[in-house]
Amino acid sequence: MSRQNFRVIKPEIRVLGIDDGKFIPRTRGNAIVVGVVFRGGISIEGVMHTHVAIDGLDATEKQAAMINTSPHRRQLRLVMLNGITFAGFNVVDIEKLSAAVELPVLALTRDKPDLGRIHEALKNLPNAEERWKMALEAGEIHEVQNNGVKVYLELAGISLCNAEKIIKLTSTRSCVPEPLRVAHLIASGISSEHL
Amino acid sequence: MSRQNFRVIKPEIRVLGIDDGKFIPRTRGNAIVVGVVFRGGISIEGVMHTHVAIDGLDATEKQAAMINTSPHRRQLRLVMLNGITFAGFNVVDIEKLSAAVELPVLALTRDKPDLGRIHEALKNLPNAEERWKMALEAGEIHEVQNNGVKVYLELAGISLCNAEKIIKLTSTRSCVPEPLRVAHLIASGISSEHL
Repeated sequence: MSRQNFRVIKPEIRVLGIDDGKFIPRTRGNAIVVGVVFRGGISIEGVMHTHVAIDGLDATEKQAAMINTSPHRRQLRLVMLNGITFAGFNVVDIEKLSAAVELPVLALTRDKPDLGRIHEALKNLPNAEERWKMALEAGEIHEVQNNGVKVYLELAGISLCNAEKIIKLTSTRSCVPEPLRVAHLIASGISSEHL
Repeated sequence: MSRQNFRVIKPEIRVLGIDDGKFIPRTRGNAIVVGVVFRGGISIEGVMHTHVAIDGLDATEKQAAMINTSPHRRQLRLVMLNGITFAGFNVVDIEKLSAAVELPVLALTRDKPDLGRIHEALKNLPNAEERWKMALEAGEIHEVQNNGVKVYLELAGISLCNAEKIIKLTSTRSCVPEPLRVAHLIASGISSEHL
């Protein structure tokens, strides 16, 4: 996808935050993935969900389908992911996701992604090369300050400058943007009994 | 439970909002019930869940267990329910719930509870008398104005005056308090695929 031009970033911009729920690592089965539609950093407008395979290869496709079939799709201007790995090492190809939903995608983590560790872990899984290629395609890892705390971004279809603006706008309660903070609370709160 | 004295209602009062997810009426099985911890009408602090039987008799007990086992329990000052029936006609005994969790309980609906219709519907279910007794024990139905819209309250362990204050404080986005508005969005957003 070509880089989206945000001429103006409105305070009420609709952002989808996505995170996964709890699951038992290295088992077969699915983990729930929750998407939360936020209006700026202020209020929740909707919730959606899908399931992805633990250590599977379907995270990109499942998230694209969840977004494209949502009644909120047309209001959305950006997708934020809690990192690029879901349900273990089910890697999201953020360029491919961005193209599939025709929206910019931003993956944010509190810890710096350790590509060496990811590469080692992937070696134990089927399709290691394909996963590693997706992890590399997420491109440059940007370190930025958000409310005085370092966070790390990987971007598709959005400039670093605009990504930083949207992160600041939506981080109204902590150093994590509200769409991601709340997606985490919901996904973990509704999946805890499965452990 | 004796009526709780709120000497001061703090703007950051922790309120739990509870609503049920979607389910297929008059089938066997469970519906998900979601609880959302809100700080005043402002921000989400946690999410919890349980399951209750469709048209069953376990809503009071399951909600009490969900609340009492939650790490958020000690911060909570009030429980808000979206009406007194969950998953069809699984009636919550709000006096019993209030006693079990040692918190005031407030059930709010946009439509005036139609006791005649509830009584008729209950006749088709097992334990009709027990359910009807619980519905009656919810006590007086109070009609109040909230942001210019009529809503209906049933109360346990809280005065109407304090209930109105907390409803106004937490209704920051609509005529429905945020804990209930968001519990509804989450519960329906994560249960839609089951239909």
